[in-house]
Amino acid sequence: MTRQGLLIVISGPSGAGKGTICQGLLQNNKDMCLSVSCTTRAPRPGEKHGVNYFFVGKPHFEQMIANNQLLEYAKVYDNYYGTPRQYVEEKLAMGMDVILEIDIQGALQVKQKYPQGVLIFVVPPALSLLKERLTKRGTDSLETIANRLRCVCEELSNTGRYDYLVINDTVENALDQAEAIIKAEKCRPSRFDITKFLDC
Amino acid sequence: MTRQGLLIVISGPSGAGKGTICQGLLQNNKDMCLSVSCTTRAPRPGEKHGVNYFFVGKPHFEQMIANNQLLEYAKVYDNYYGTPRQYVEEKLAMGMDVILEIDIQGALQVKQKYPQGVLIFVVPPALSLLKERLTKRGTDSLETIANRLRCVCEELSNTGRYDYLVINDTVENALDQAEAIIKAEKCRPSRFDITKFLDC
Repeated sequence: MTRQGLLIVISGPSGAGKGTICQGLLQNNKDMCLSVSCTTRAPRPGEKHGVNYFFVGKPHFEQMIANNQLLEYAKVYDNYYGTPRQYVEEKLAMGMDVILEIDIQGALQVKQKYPQGVLIFVVPPALSLLKERLTKRGTDSLETIANRLRCVCEELSNTGRYDYLVINDTVENALDQAEAIIKAEKCRPSRFDITKFLDC
Repeated sequence: MTRQGLLIVISGPSGAGKGTICQGLLQNNKDMCLSVSCTTRAPRPGEKHGVNYFFVGKPHFEQMIANNQLLEYAKVYDNYYGTPRQYVEEKLAMGMDVILEIDIQGALQVKQKYPQGVLIFVVPPALSLLKERLTKRGTDSLETIANRLRCVCEELSNTGRYDYLVINDTVENALDQAEAIIKAEKCRPSRFDITKFLDC
């Protein structure tokens, strides 16, 4: 029997570098994949069903909510986004580690439905640096950035509910810590079949 | 303020390779030290007080028990052995990680008195291999080995009470896993001062 994969939830404020860490993990680990989300929003040019998203209609999505087929979901403006339970569970059963890169609310929903999931919260070394990164990125107004920073302060009060905190001071350090966390979590006693050891 | 060190408890059956892993950890990590135990047994030639053991008299040891000055202790034949709380706590306060290489009963005592301690149980990949290692070592009678194997079976029923299980198939793998566990444990949210992050 293949050993069940690990569900890894990467969360943290915008600008903390979640995406870079996820990409690094995927590059270094062949037995790892990113979860594909469901959404009711229309595909953008070039986006493929089953690759970027599973594009579904609103009634379909609401049926999935009713049937408990989502590990987490949220409504952003008029569109739903969510993590399909079946897709994730199939990959885990195949022994693949699955990464979810989702927001804090979603992460806490996942932990409730799948307590074995490992929650990693990525933060920049200081709020001042986060402000700098978001400003340099230039995609958000100063007001949006101020709002984001306020949100981060609130989110940080939740860190006790996460399993791990990774300070993204450099990508190398953060990636190294994320890899260590995954390796360590695979050493949890609950993941071993002790009878295999008792061979004499 | 220096960040508190990590208390790492390495336990596991005789012949599992605990000692090799501890030595490897100490070699690779400058901020790590081995705890020095107290004992009432007489020093052997070459043994130094404060290096190999703290050699103390029986009344002194019993006073330490009464004063809750030991993280764990046991009586083996007519001698006491134990881990002095003060020595360990001083090193931890200096930011040093402290390793205890102790038996299972001791490890569970430590976890009770110091729940932040990280318990790693080292096992060989299979009982058949453990039997082989103990036989090759040639220091124990066949009867002793048979007894040891029976004990190991009992001890294995306790693995759920450990934080991590490291299968010592090769020293490199086992050491790599132990290092990952230590790195991961340093990412626990409880070890961070979040106010440091909130700098703006």
